[in-house]
Amino acid sequence: MNDAPIGIFDSGVGGLTVARAIGDQLPRESLVYIGDTLHSPYGPKPIADVRRYSLEVLDSLVDQGVKMLVIACNTASAAVLGDARERYDVPVVEVIRPAVRTAIATTRNGRIGVIGTEGTIGSGAYQDMLELNDALTVFAQACPAFVDFVERGVTGSPELLEIAEGYLAPLRHAGIDTLVLGCTHYPFLKGAISYVMGPDVSLVASDDETANDVYRQLVTRDLLTSSEQPGTHVYEATGGSPDAFIDLANRLMGREVRSVQLVHTGAIELPPT
Amino acid sequence: MNDAPIGIFDSGVGGLTVARAIGDQLPRESLVYIGDTLHSPYGPKPIADVRRYSLEVLDSLVDQGVKMLVIACNTASAAVLGDARERYDVPVVEVIRPAVRTAIATTRNGRIGVIGTEGTIGSGAYQDMLELNDALTVFAQACPAFVDFVERGVTGSPELLEIAEGYLAPLRHAGIDTLVLGCTHYPFLKGAISYVMGPDVSLVASDDETANDVYRQLVTRDLLTSSEQPGTHVYEATGGSPDAFIDLANRLMGREVRSVQLVHTGAIELPPT
Repeated sequence: MNDAPIGIFDSGVGGLTVARAIGDQLPRESLVYIGDTLHSPYGPKPIADVRRYSLEVLDSLVDQGVKMLVIACNTASAAVLGDARERYDVPVVEVIRPAVRTAIATTRNGRIGVIGTEGTIGSGAYQDMLELNDALTVFAQACPAFVDFVERGVTGSPELLEIAEGYLAPLRHAGIDTLVLGCTHYPFLKGAISYVMGPDVSLVASDDETANDVYRQLVTRDLLTSSEQPGTHVYEATGGSPDAFIDLANRLMGREVRSVQLVHTGAIELPPT
Repeated sequence: MNDAPIGIFDSGVGGLTVARAIGDQLPRESLVYIGDTLHSPYGPKPIADVRRYSLEVLDSLVDQGVKMLVIACNTASAAVLGDARERYDVPVVEVIRPAVRTAIATTRNGRIGVIGTEGTIGSGAYQDMLELNDALTVFAQACPAFVDFVERGVTGSPELLEIAEGYLAPLRHAGIDTLVLGCTHYPFLKGAISYVMGPDVSLVASDDETANDVYRQLVTRDLLTSSEQPGTHVYEATGGSPDAFIDLANRLMGREVRSVQLVHTGAIELPPT
């Protein structure tokens, strides 16, 4: 048993979908969420910078005494998982592997699609991991406009559907039967994506799969809380306006976020690799 | 375009998971949710009573001018779908078919498990629909203690895991590769169920699948709202204590429910069938 909070990190607000899924599965666990809004978005940045920013934030979570780290950011997951596992004593969970594992367990025809931001798709993180399996054929597609639609709360407009049809047409023509939503914002577009792809294509989202992984690791390492009360949820951001963060988080999360604290993480200099 | 609200109905609070999934996918749609807490639970009641109570509530939603009805209750879905489609002009969506369709699209070995309350499993609603497909073998298991654990917020205790191991052991031994969570409370146990079943078993929950069906029907029937503002969410209950409803709903839904109105639905006499 361990009553310390779980630390969750994203470059911005998208990782709140992962935090919510963890809170759903484990309502008695306390969570500390940091959005690195000072440096968001990570996607377009050089990997060395992403690594530096990510480790600053993760150090700050470890300094706050978390019992587990969750990297709820696709770009950071690919950039920093190895470093984080080496650097910290607490277990580190990220968002790519759980979704990849579920996609492999789900596909029947071996044809898997992956969608995400340009940064995530360009990094090849999902494709590399899926293509370790020779029996799979992977089709990747960046959907750069999706995040903005989600943040504006537009999930059913004709404009969105037209854009979705355009992005997803190559995946439909490729005959995929499983589609990985490789961006933490995309669970809000499940309805639209399922509409365009048809009900026979299985959607795999990293929020639920990552929460399942967190659950599994807490149980197997005997790290579940002994508390019989609902856990506390603390939200922190590294820059920008707390009000804007709360506003966006509330729109995404159903008004669960009441306040956010600004934290300043120190600069970390890594030795050149 | 149609700016009327979507009407959602359950015997109690469990259907709020379906309401939340619909709110996630369609944040601009307004929702009216009625929990028939006066008559809850439906599971142990004769089907004729369930039908009568359900149509009372659905009538009340139609009287409030909803553009679509969502039966977010497994017992009522099986009992009343045909009557509801005959009785109302608005489209009717329920929770069993969407999950069944996804399970069929997901399984690779044709061995599908279904879990639910004793009422749902005893009714055979899921099994009947799945077994229309000769290629499938269906294994059903009632998990009567699960709802109480979810309502107490206990999802990771050793006691819960031991009970889950007991319920799910026959399904594990049966070699299922897909498990339908046939109760609206069970999405909160995804972590526990996935832990017990292992990561290679796909979990199909009716909240997301029903929301996808709602989305699909609103688009194809041109019933999406034209509003560019977040929709309003109204919660109603037919009996019991509003405070108890709010308390439970907030625990289940992440504090989204602010108030609940008590409504009195009239008695409906149906001709004997």
